[in-house]
Amino acid sequence: MSGKTLQFWFSFGSTYTYLSTQRIEQLANPNGINVEWYPFILKRISSGSGNQSNPRKVSYMWRDLKRHADRHGLEFHQPALYPVDYELTANVSLVACQDGWGPEFIKLVFRWNFVDGRQIGVDDNLEAVLRELGREPGVLIEKAQSDEIVGAMQQQTEKATSLGIFGSPSFMVGDELFWGDDRLEEAIEWCVTH
Amino acid sequence: MSGKTLQFWFSFGSTYTYLSTQRIEQLANPNGINVEWYPFILKRISSGSGNQSNPRKVSYMWRDLKRHADRHGLEFHQPALYPVDYELTANVSLVACQDGWGPEFIKLVFRWNFVDGRQIGVDDNLEAVLRELGREPGVLIEKAQSDEIVGAMQQQTEKATSLGIFGSPSFMVGDELFWGDDRLEEAIEWCVTH
Repeated sequence: MSGKTLQFWFSFGSTYTYLSTQRIEQLANPNGINVEWYPFILKRISSGSGNQSNPRKVSYMWRDLKRHADRHGLEFHQPALYPVDYELTANVSLVACQDGWGPEFIKLVFRWNFVDGRQIGVDDNLEAVLRELGREPGVLIEKAQSDEIVGAMQQQTEKATSLGIFGSPSFMVGDELFWGDDRLEEAIEWCVTH
Repeated sequence: MSGKTLQFWFSFGSTYTYLSTQRIEQLANPNGINVEWYPFILKRISSGSGNQSNPRKVSYMWRDLKRHADRHGLEFHQPALYPVDYELTANVSLVACQDGWGPEFIKLVFRWNFVDGRQIGVDDNLEAVLRELGREPGVLIEKAQSDEIVGAMQQQTEKATSLGIFGSPSFMVGDELFWGDDRLEEAIEWCVTH
């Protein structure tokens, strides 16, 4: 066990983050790396990778995602809607992280979005995932909209900014920043060797 | 020998393209893959990956490039100037590609930019590289500014657009597009297996 920690900073609006959510534990666990999950609201701090403004880039993104899902043995179906409205889902995920069931919630939200066609922000993704996990949607959604959680999410997003983060998924190992699902293995390696 | 061809589409304004120019032949040659080099003017067709508009992303880019140069055993020093004015260099590279010495010219331009601090568009990079290769700068630069070459470069840039290319480096294997130095190994693999 390395006893080391990898911070996983992510936004629900990011397509490539689907891959990282499904892969990170399988890569971290065998190396004894503790993963901390930090949702933030990317659209508040960055235009991101600029994917959405370029139709050719968006077209490529879907193809590249499919190829990479195949490489990693993950199911993938292009959702009908992109980009999505994900703020409420992000705020619920923050509650879930505080309560200790963040990863299972986050993984399932992404999986249903990219595998089962139940899209984030629409299609009853949020409430259905909560019910699937045996949680009470009404109570949690109310808490997610409280000043406390809305403020905490804003703080977490400002923290991401202060760390130099500009996209999702991002991985922090100490002060070292890695951006993109492509860099997940490299971040794990850095964690082990530094 | 697979007898297959990989098209390498690139722009001199792209930093990550440095890595691909230095790596592509070593990856392609052992697999019997023929590499065709196609310079184009990225800034005419795309805002690219949006790196230049986001200071945090630019800062990350330099760090990521250094880490990846290290991984590949390539020297790398961050040049003082970015972005650079590369159109004339691109046009000369098109002449060089037509004359059969494109790769050696392109590799050296990039190497001097990112290793020796002789920057594209300034610092006598272009003329010095030509002299280093035993070529006559005056004659070649005049030809590179001719209607014939300027028009051919515009055609090649439009061809890139029609292929769906939006960034550099890009790799085409048949109709399959791969974007980014990160995808070079995958493009080689695709070339071998398809």
